Amino acid sequence: MKLLPEEFNWHWIIEWSTPSTAHMHAVKNVYAYGNSKYQRWAVVEYEDFGKALVIDGKIQSSIIDEYVYHESLVHPAMILNGNPRKVLILGGGEGATAREALRFKSVESIVMVDLDEEIIEVSKKYLNEWHRNSFYDKRYKLVIGDAYSYIKDSKEAYDVIISDLVDPEEYGPAVKLYTKEFYEMTSERLGERGIFVTQSTSPVSTPTVHAVIYNTIKSVFKYAISYYVYIRSFESIWGFVMASNEVDVSRIKGVDIEKAEEGLVEDSNRYYDNESHSHMFYIPKYIRSILERERRVSTLKDPIYLPA
Amino acid sequence: MKLLPEEFNWHWIIEWSTPSTAHMHAVKNVYAYGNSKYQRWAVVEYEDFGKALVIDGKIQSSIIDEYVYHESLVHPAMILNGNPRKVLILGGGEGATAREALRFKSVESIVMVDLDEEIIEVSKKYLNEWHRNSFYDKRYKLVIGDAYSYIKDSKEAYDVIISDLVDPEEYGPAVKLYTKEFYEMTSERLGERGIFVTQSTSPVSTPTVHAVIYNTIKSVFKYAISYYVYIRSFESIWGFVMASNEVDVSRIKGVDIEKAEEGLVEDSNRYYDNESHSHMFYIPKYIRSILERERRVSTLKDPIYLPA
Amino acid sequence: MKLLPEEFNWHWIIEWSTPSTAHMHAVKNVYAYGNSKYQRWAVVEYEDFGKALVIDGKIQSSIIDEYVYHESLVHPAMILNGNPRKVLILGGGEGATAREALRFKSVESIVMVDLDEEIIEVSKKYLNEWHRNSFYDKRYKLVIGDAYSYIKDSKEAYDVIISDLVDPEEYGPAVKLYTKEFYEMTSERLGERGIFVTQSTSPVSTPTVHAVIYNTIKSVFKYAISYYVYIRSFESIWGFVMASNEVDVSRIKGVDIEKAEEGLVEDSNRYYDNESHSHMFYIPKYIRSILERERRVSTLKDPIYLPA
Amino acid sequence: MKLLPEEFNWHWIIEWSTPSTAHMHAVKNVYAYGNSKYQRWAVVEYEDFGKALVIDGKIQSSIIDEYVYHESLVHPAMILNGNPRKVLILGGGEGATAREALRFKSVESIVMVDLDEEIIEVSKKYLNEWHRNSFYDKRYKLVIGDAYSYIKDSKEAYDVIISDLVDPEEYGPAVKLYTKEFYEMTSERLGERGIFVTQSTSPVSTPTVHAVIYNTIKSVFKYAISYYVYIRSFESIWGFVMASNEVDVSRIKGVDIEKAEEGLVEDSNRYYDNESHSHMFYIPKYIRSILERERRVSTLKDPIYLPA
Repeated sequence: MKLLPEEFNWHWIIEWSTPSTAHMHAVKNVYAYGNSKYQRWAVVEYEDFGKALVIDGKIQSSIIDEYVYHESLVHPAMILNGNPRKVLILGGGEGATAREALRFKSVESIVMVDLDEEIIEVSKKYLNEWHRNSFYDKRYKLVIGDAYSYIKDSKEAYDVIISDLVDPEEYGPAVKLYTKEFYEMTSERLGERGIFVTQSTSPVSTPTVHAVIYNTIKSVFKYAISYYVYIRSFESIWGFVMASNEVDVSRIKGVDIEKAEEGLVEDSNRYYDNESHSHMFYIPKYIRSILERERRVSTLKDPIYLPA
Repeated sequence: MKLLPEEFNWHWIIEWSTPSTAHMHAVKNVYAYGNSKYQRWAVVEYEDFGKALVIDGKIQSSIIDEYVYHESLVHPAMILNGNPRKVLILGGGEGATAREALRFKSVESIVMVDLDEEIIEVSKKYLNEWHRNSFYDKRYKLVIGDAYSYIKDSKEAYDVIISDLVDPEEYGPAVKLYTKEFYEMTSERLGERGIFVTQSTSPVSTPTVHAVIYNTIKSVFKYAISYYVYIRSFESIWGFVMASNEVDVSRIKGVDIEKAEEGLVEDSNRYYDNESHSHMFYIPKYIRSILERERRVSTLKDPIYLPA
Repeated sequence: MKLLPEEFNWHWIIEWSTPSTAHMHAVKNVYAYGNSKYQRWAVVEYEDFGKALVIDGKIQSSIIDEYVYHESLVHPAMILNGNPRKVLILGGGEGATAREALRFKSVESIVMVDLDEEIIEVSKKYLNEWHRNSFYDKRYKLVIGDAYSYIKDSKEAYDVIISDLVDPEEYGPAVKLYTKEFYEMTSERLGERGIFVTQSTSPVSTPTVHAVIYNTIKSVFKYAISYYVYIRSFESIWGFVMASNEVDVSRIKGVDIEKAEEGLVEDSNRYYDNESHSHMFYIPKYIRSILERERRVSTLKDPIYLPA
Repeated sequence: MKLLPEEFNWHWIIEWSTPSTAHMHAVKNVYAYGNSKYQRWAVVEYEDFGKALVIDGKIQSSIIDEYVYHESLVHPAMILNGNPRKVLILGGGEGATAREALRFKSVESIVMVDLDEEIIEVSKKYLNEWHRNSFYDKRYKLVIGDAYSYIKDSKEAYDVIISDLVDPEEYGPAVKLYTKEFYEMTSERLGERGIFVTQSTSPVSTPTVHAVIYNTIKSVFKYAISYYVYIRSFESIWGFVMASNEVDVSRIKGVDIEKAEEGLVEDSNRYYDNESHSHMFYIPKYIRSILERERRVSTLKDPIYLPA
């Protein structure tokens, strides 16, 4: 068959994993596009993945699987705490991390600290499927500002602190938010049975960065564990690290999470059930090996950043 | 040197010449984006070429060289006529073809027939550097409609008819506007010393289409000539065909066009001068060979279209 | 920083998942390149993944993770059988499937049926890290030919049949090797406690194809189960389906595979251990949903093929 | 129409003009591939352009238009000299520059100085359509070595010196071969009516580099002129600079080159005739403007290189 060039997609976002590996995604529509004080962003419709938020060339989440990412980020920590009332979210611009936290009936207040007000406004306007009006929930409070300063100045105790920040890219604003010093301050902001959880980049695309984040958290908290989920629109496995000084977070592996969420969570999860849970906490050997080999800890003086 | 993936451009328009050859252009900004009744369009800022109008994946013109294209399209025909008063433009959505025609002091009226009102509105709003308010000149009149019907129904006589249409892409609206039947009707709309000129695709990217357009025009008009100019933002040579029943258009080669435009044209050209003129009308052999080999004529029944 | 174009990679293989999604991999070296009777192939060194075999634009396996794929394909079926002596491999050109099977001490004979002799010769010459001289093991026998005819004409009984074929691409030679009719003949070639296992495409890139393969196998065999592993160089999750008429293959989930392999397998696995095993057999919900929704069965008359 | 990913080309060479503009060319076959002491090279068959030599990601010449490039490089200088007997070629690895020079009946000897013996061997083996056995002509002599040292140490006088070197890429071996100091030594190697000509990069892709090369040559020689031709497989206009201390090279514009070559050149040109000649020496204004604006001269201490 003879193809016509007109039939080829022509509008593409090329997401570079490294200078030698990239993902090409055809764009069907552009809803909005801009440059905020901190980053270049776009709300687009991918041909294959539907609506998505892209920041500085990286897909942040897409409508086909944002729930996989956000349920994985939020639920294990909330369940381990058992009775989360006060929640702190660092980053989380799309509003979906708040949405998942607000589904826990015990939650009384959520503070979300995000640097980039423009992204929040964009999310409010274009990403209703993500935030589901969480921005307007009376338990939700937004603080525009730097997470480092907020954590440093805060006197509060939170039941769960969820870090949903952009990756620590060289020269980017998030590098210091993955350091030992920051995690030490964060650990002091945890209340009784307090749990900290963070996205921790991809263990396969950026294995060193992921392993150093894991190591750094392990060096600060008494208990730490990592877990993983494949995110279709990232075309990669994604990593999370959960930690606590009071709760042995490795116990999550044995929890019947469907039962644990009964009565605790409104309506039902789209992704996170017992079998998905087991999949996430049994770690394939090629990832375990990366963690075992790594000895570095990220510090303000010698931070880790992308790429390794 | 180790490069960071963050430093790579991530937003690209890939312009396919064939399924095996394409140009990649990084996009710096998106001014506007939409789907009209007929086509998908974008007004973007290319990193290397600046602001540009893109329709269905093809750059229509960019700010760095739209004047090369539009002066080349408009001036030779106007000069050959010598005293152009009534001008008809088919297509020409950006308004730059009208701008060039309006620079001729003898011009009393311009009718521009364009199918896609949305593109006109986009041009008015975003492409002021192109139209320079030509849309609002009292000599200018816009007709939204199909050029085929307009030519068929018109009783007017024009001094110069300028076809600035999109390429004849299979299944596209322009295929019939490059046929013998259409050119026959067009030739009847030319007045005394009337000249017809059309863009005629690229002689190197789509040589057969170009050669058939040339052949078709030659089969209809008494006199016909083709000429060429390299358009940086197309990264290709572009072809034009000029024809007449009364004026031997090949005489243009010997004209001192700088002198001919004295008194006739307001202010000075950015590109078109005597030496550029000679460059355009002396044709390299690899293009002449293409023209010599081709025998086909495009008809409504058996039209030529992209790709060959 | 100002980048020089010279510093960009220029030699790429673009692996298309769909017309709207593709992976770009920079090539550092080309070891060999050719067109066999059936396919276009290359042995290249990727910048990021090292040496790899590419057939018709699809990476077949790369040195960084071929063992993840091949251990996952071979070991569960061999363990479930318990005492595999006669093994049949369909496809498997690189020789790594044979390598894994030969590691089982009970194995007395392996027949490998592959269509493309040229790929075998290429593998022998360039992919020693894959086959580790399995091609020259006295228990190994190669048959050049079509797997369909081989299975149809064979009277043998095999303990384990491993299908390591290329994907069922439209017009390709493998479409009929994923049909009900083929699986019925295959099931008759299984001996006592005989197990069949096949690669079954990606549940995320080509979910329908994967689900239909699973359905088709389930419709033929008494017992069937699917399992999954992320393959870094495919940048995707990969699926396998294991089936039997005598052994309840779902029991594999509860097996201590490390213990089961003691005494049975020479030296130790690089990837497949108890935790990796659990990860593979606990299936995330977004994959289970795909399987649940699908009702089609692939037949010779109405076969499934890529893309969905 | 629904396209299958299998129908897309998957093997590409991406030629970067800048970090924001690139050309993609699908590869149909790889004839040979290697890394010499100086550069990475490939002899490939492009889907659209046929056989081509690629060095460090840049197409050097393709079978569809190498004659356009090589006739343009060689003929004007040879004609201006009028009776070329001794010719020096710097670079010219494919052997096609020698081929064109050997077509002049007056030529008694050609010395070709090329750094990279491996490229010469590759050309001998795979590029017969280029060299046409010029490497074995008894008038031809090859010197493997650095052109800078050769010119510095030579005491010879040449009628025509043709520089067919790779572009002056930062850190590359050719940067010093485009400097004032090198051109001064070269001018001393010209005999009576001696002419120097060099390729001088693209005036549109790398306008500053081209203009500085032109300026530098103009600052050294009494007479200098630039000329241009569109090279299809470069998808760009290419520039040449011709210079002399004795012959007013601008006179070439008025020469009837077809007549001048009668009796002087064996068989007939494929591209270079009178009309092509005029096309090359009438320069469009957007190129003239670039030349007029530039004041820099390239020196060993402060050399020009790609990109600007």
